[in-house]
Amino acid sequence: MAKISVLFHSGYGHTKKQAESVASGAGSVSGASAALIAISADGTITDDDWAALAASDAIIFGAPTYMGGASWQFKKIADASSKPWFGQVWKDKIAAGFTNSATMNGDKFSTIQYMITLAMQHSMVWIGTGMMPSNTKAATRNDVNYVGGFSGALAQSPSDASPDEAPLPGDLETARLFGIRVAEYAVKTRG
Amino acid sequence: MAKISVLFHSGYGHTKKQAESVASGAGSVSGASAALIAISADGTITDDDWAALAASDAIIFGAPTYMGGASWQFKKIADASSKPWFGQVWKDKIAAGFTNSATMNGDKFSTIQYMITLAMQHSMVWIGTGMMPSNTKAATRNDVNYVGGFSGALAQSPSDASPDEAPLPGDLETARLFGIRVAEYAVKTRG
Amino acid sequence: MAKISVLFHSGYGHTKKQAESVASGAGSVSGASAALIAISADGTITDDDWAALAASDAIIFGAPTYMGGASWQFKKIADASSKPWFGQVWKDKIAAGFTNSATMNGDKFSTIQYMITLAMQHSMVWIGTGMMPSNTKAATRNDVNYVGGFSGALAQSPSDASPDEAPLPGDLETARLFGIRVAEYAVKTRG
Amino acid sequence: MAKISVLFHSGYGHTKKQAESVASGAGSVSGASAALIAISADGTITDDDWAALAASDAIIFGAPTYMGGASWQFKKIADASSKPWFGQVWKDKIAAGFTNSATMNGDKFSTIQYMITLAMQHSMVWIGTGMMPSNTKAATRNDVNYVGGFSGALAQSPSDASPDEAPLPGDLETARLFGIRVAEYAVKTRG
Repeated sequence: MAKISVLFHSGYGHTKKQAESVASGAGSVSGASAALIAISADGTITDDDWAALAASDAIIFGAPTYMGGASWQFKKIADASSKPWFGQVWKDKIAAGFTNSATMNGDKFSTIQYMITLAMQHSMVWIGTGMMPSNTKAATRNDVNYVGGFSGALAQSPSDASPDEAPLPGDLETARLFGIRVAEYAVKTRG
Repeated sequence: MAKISVLFHSGYGHTKKQAESVASGAGSVSGASAALIAISADGTITDDDWAALAASDAIIFGAPTYMGGASWQFKKIADASSKPWFGQVWKDKIAAGFTNSATMNGDKFSTIQYMITLAMQHSMVWIGTGMMPSNTKAATRNDVNYVGGFSGALAQSPSDASPDEAPLPGDLETARLFGIRVAEYAVKTRG
Repeated sequence: MAKISVLFHSGYGHTKKQAESVASGAGSVSGASAALIAISADGTITDDDWAALAASDAIIFGAPTYMGGASWQFKKIADASSKPWFGQVWKDKIAAGFTNSATMNGDKFSTIQYMITLAMQHSMVWIGTGMMPSNTKAATRNDVNYVGGFSGALAQSPSDASPDEAPLPGDLETARLFGIRVAEYAVKTRG
Repeated sequence: MAKISVLFHSGYGHTKKQAESVASGAGSVSGASAALIAISADGTITDDDWAALAASDAIIFGAPTYMGGASWQFKKIADASSKPWFGQVWKDKIAAGFTNSATMNGDKFSTIQYMITLAMQHSMVWIGTGMMPSNTKAATRNDVNYVGGFSGALAQSPSDASPDEAPLPGDLETARLFGIRVAEYAVKTRG
């Protein structure tokens, strides 16, 4: 079985919903299993979580975009990953990323870029959404990949919407399909 | 008078409309004048254009986002700007940027990041939109800064929309207000 | 007087030395005063520090590059700056940034890019080093701007060098001149 | 056989030497073949070159960093790749990148970031250097990965050095080992 870990931080619950959709997609792939690893409000995970990451075939990073970048709790884990980095424990694992924020564009790409940079320091291999955007005149807000991410999966939740209201079904379906893509690649390359 | 140059490339006319809105805003500011400098389809501008850039207080860069970055015609001018770069002719001028593409997010930020990087090599000073995004549940597509740029002004034109149809009035108003912001800063700092 | 705040985090003392050089340069400019604001090991600053930032004409960000981005302590302050962001308290202030890391290139640019993105969300105005790089065959490691930053000031300290050994005098002189540049611009634009 | 294409532009010959080292490494891997595809001075490649790219298992991008980004000739090919992009012809191919410039840091990372962004639009899978940097006090300029790239392979050639003088042997060895890494991953994942 290819093991997929979804390592995420969520501040208010929107990114958590996105993470669950990613894991749901990844776990639905034949030959793959998916588990969520939630980063706490003070930016920590357990020793078991670190061990699970070390045993994963793929790690999918998730964080809200706050003030133009991944939340500090996510960054705290990234900084703590200097320990597996030193031994290149994550080398050749598959990496991918997703983010949610209130604004349509709103520097989400900055968060994804950072996740790529982190993955490259770990000598991981990065895979994106593999989805064409929905961008014709006939496109509607709830289409798959309407927000339009290539390097990672994106969701947009209005600043005053609760996690019950957002992300919208289309953004969550984007997340689910993204999870499938990562898991399929993990299964294929596991050999 | 503070001289504002809007140096832009447009492939199909959408970015041109955005550029005209930026210039319209900039030129409306008391104490400022604005001129458009269009980059040709083969990535050139005239000697007079280069002289106008050298005499400008602010240069606003504009280009469509193609394949995740500024169009090659814009990059060709950027590469040719190594000549004024060598003498640091643009040093301390104000710089800003805008872009249009078909997808809502679609790596527009990559284009703006490049424009900033270019400006920094020229020792210019970068100013963004200075606009809060429209991102509540009540937000509508045609609001000012709905697309949601901070580092530069963004527009989204559907892939099958003609320049008569897009950018939408809201994106063009965003461009106009952005032009005003840059020009006002140029007037203020001209002393 | 133009007030310059150097808001920085340092993990082991190297970035602190760089910050002190930046502040030394900024404070030497006629009409400017400079103060250091150190972010604590758990990513906090005092209420007085927040008030000092609100009263500043320029804020210079500084952080080590850890795992491809600014340290989490810096990011925690960035996230906490959503409060002044909401009221756009830092609007039109001058912003700039610097970073130190062990590797010559080593994704330092990622840290500077993030600082720019943060500044743009705050509607600040970004200024870089304004320095040509030392990059000819005759260049030596200890030259000003040998590391070669444009968007922000860069220093490189070997992974096994103490803060007494690194950054090298050339990188610290780069930092000092960078502080002068930011302060001079702050004085000039203060009117 | 896994087919590796090294698609590169070189303005003065330094990046060409780097490209040759990458191809030399890639071609030395058992089960892999490597070919160079040189982008012309006016930013074109032949129809046969486009066909070779379509038939490749991996495409390694190479370009000098000019004015903070990949040369316009490289960008012109990137823009022209909108045709295979539209049909997602390059989907799931392996992608990687390298760059050379005169300055040690000098915004090389901006070029690599752009190459990643391009690859992600093509739904390719990105692999970096997989090399730890040489960054201790004992490090010397000619060490493998002294310049210190993770996301892509980096070389630095002084502004007044001919292609006979630079890149240095250490940077070329970095390029060769990088070619090996990409080819090995291509062989492994080809199944």
